[in-house]
Amino acid sequence: MSKPLFRRVALIGLGLEGSSLALVMRREGLAGHIAGCARTQATLDTAARLGFVDSTHLDPAKAVAGADLVVLCTPVSTFGDLAAKFAPALAPGCIVSDVGSVKLAVIRDVGPLLPEGVHFVPGHPIAGTEKSGPESGFATLFENRYCILTPPPGTDRAAIEKVSELWRRAGSMVETMDARHHDRVLAITSHLPHLIAYTIVGTAADLESQLRRESAENGDVVSTQEVIKYSAGGFRDFTRIAGSDPVMWRDVFLNNREAVLEMLGRFVEDLTGLQRAIRWGEGEALEDWFRRTREIRRGVVEMGQAGRFIATETDDGKTGGGKPGKSG
Amino acid sequence: MSKPLFRRVALIGLGLEGSSLALVMRREGLAGHIAGCARTQATLDTAARLGFVDSTHLDPAKAVAGADLVVLCTPVSTFGDLAAKFAPALAPGCIVSDVGSVKLAVIRDVGPLLPEGVHFVPGHPIAGTEKSGPESGFATLFENRYCILTPPPGTDRAAIEKVSELWRRAGSMVETMDARHHDRVLAITSHLPHLIAYTIVGTAADLESQLRRESAENGDVVSTQEVIKYSAGGFRDFTRIAGSDPVMWRDVFLNNREAVLEMLGRFVEDLTGLQRAIRWGEGEALEDWFRRTREIRRGVVEMGQAGRFIATETDDGKTGGGKPGKSG
Repeated sequence: MSKPLFRRVALIGLGLEGSSLALVMRREGLAGHIAGCARTQATLDTAARLGFVDSTHLDPAKAVAGADLVVLCTPVSTFGDLAAKFAPALAPGCIVSDVGSVKLAVIRDVGPLLPEGVHFVPGHPIAGTEKSGPESGFATLFENRYCILTPPPGTDRAAIEKVSELWRRAGSMVETMDARHHDRVLAITSHLPHLIAYTIVGTAADLESQLRRESAENGDVVSTQEVIKYSAGGFRDFTRIAGSDPVMWRDVFLNNREAVLEMLGRFVEDLTGLQRAIRWGEGEALEDWFRRTREIRRGVVEMGQAGRFIATETDDGKTGGGKPGKSG
Repeated sequence: MSKPLFRRVALIGLGLEGSSLALVMRREGLAGHIAGCARTQATLDTAARLGFVDSTHLDPAKAVAGADLVVLCTPVSTFGDLAAKFAPALAPGCIVSDVGSVKLAVIRDVGPLLPEGVHFVPGHPIAGTEKSGPESGFATLFENRYCILTPPPGTDRAAIEKVSELWRRAGSMVETMDARHHDRVLAITSHLPHLIAYTIVGTAADLESQLRRESAENGDVVSTQEVIKYSAGGFRDFTRIAGSDPVMWRDVFLNNREAVLEMLGRFVEDLTGLQRAIRWGEGEALEDWFRRTREIRRGVVEMGQAGRFIATETDDGKTGGGKPGKSG
């Protein structure tokens, strides 16, 4: 095996992202030693049992000692405190990176704490599942996914290249962009969709209990959990998104507030326009809007970002994937 | 082969739903004769070439002549005119049904036009794909999907049972409910999710072009179609829903206006509450809401409505399906 890309890697946080990254580094032989750090001994024990770390640490400072790469894989609200704890123990020339879904806040919270001679290369792999915890990781999580790096101006080129190589070996397509730009693009492509999904699933749950009460009063028989029962009509896709980690997403919204509120404002403007078109029966306005979005869907499919859909599984009322024969 | 369930079936509309229903009846031997009716000769020629109809008709009246089952499979806005054309030609004892996504409007538009002695059993199979046209049909479309029947009070029991049997043979789970109740439940589980998806995809498209302009001005390099490029972050699921048939969905919103506007009002109330929580940094309120929706997701999974997800294809930023090994 050739010389590993990193001599000693410290992973702070061993959930889905941390454990998956460890499994990638194992498979690719990218790290001479993987030091795992977690908040609880239980997580460390699980990581040791699964064998994707060489040493386990409750103390971030001990985890990063002698590391040439440190990757923060915890909810972004914890980055500041963690960096404050381990920064003094960082070796000169060490690279500090992360997998956080927001980037301006990470640069704001972590950047100032890092000592001279340490390279800061914030990153965001756009990949995940609704699962969490050290047992949820798998080495193919990042394959064919974009990973966005947002190094502050003047960041050491060699450090950026080493982090890029790590993600390329994970099977990701690496892009570099300005942190503010990242936060705005992700606010519309990821953060707002999650906020909307979280909202409607809650709205539906409240309505459902009300519908049941009403129906009971009317004396007509209603099967329980109708909203869930008929979720194939489109709602189901929202429930999947709304099943994401609550703490992680709380942090995303609190740490990308401006961009999320801006995108939310744009969305509500447009929604209100369509609401008015429905109220006043403006069919043409609705149809025009729907035709335009269909074109955008074609763009997604052409760019290979759509994934294959299994008709019998992702279908919903008049929507969804291709035929089973063509997909899955 | 045993005696078919129907002697002669007339399918009005040969798109995804009509062609799929025809293929089911072929496979199950449910119809002695399938008469296909479409607006264009091209569609009729395609249906004849694919062989899922025994006769083709441009005139609905000719199509339904002698039929003991007529199924409307066109956009719901067309039902009234079509029924007016074929009602006089209906044979006594004939059953008229449909596959429309709204039911009160269908009963309002079609019911009064049907002659004495004709049985009206409105239906809604909650199944579909984003494809459309006579070549998009497949016999398994309705398998393991719910089909909701909303027969008006006093409808002939035998007629309801025959339509139920048709859908059971298609592999569907048949439910009967009040039309108004159907329209409210589907407004939240299907219609509102589609409206929201259509909205945000349009919002994102507008933003994307603006971001490109801004970036060009700042002189920083931006790859085109970033919103699509990073759609794996959650946006992708919305684009799939927003790829649905524009005319069909225009009709759904115009014909279920009251229920959709009611659900939209509830949704906006809740969204505004979460917006305020983000603005004022109320992390606990956000986390509580997100935890509740995660429970609902569990309910969907437990009820087997979730489908299996393929991590490398349905993932998005920290969301999505299970591991490839466990799914697909």
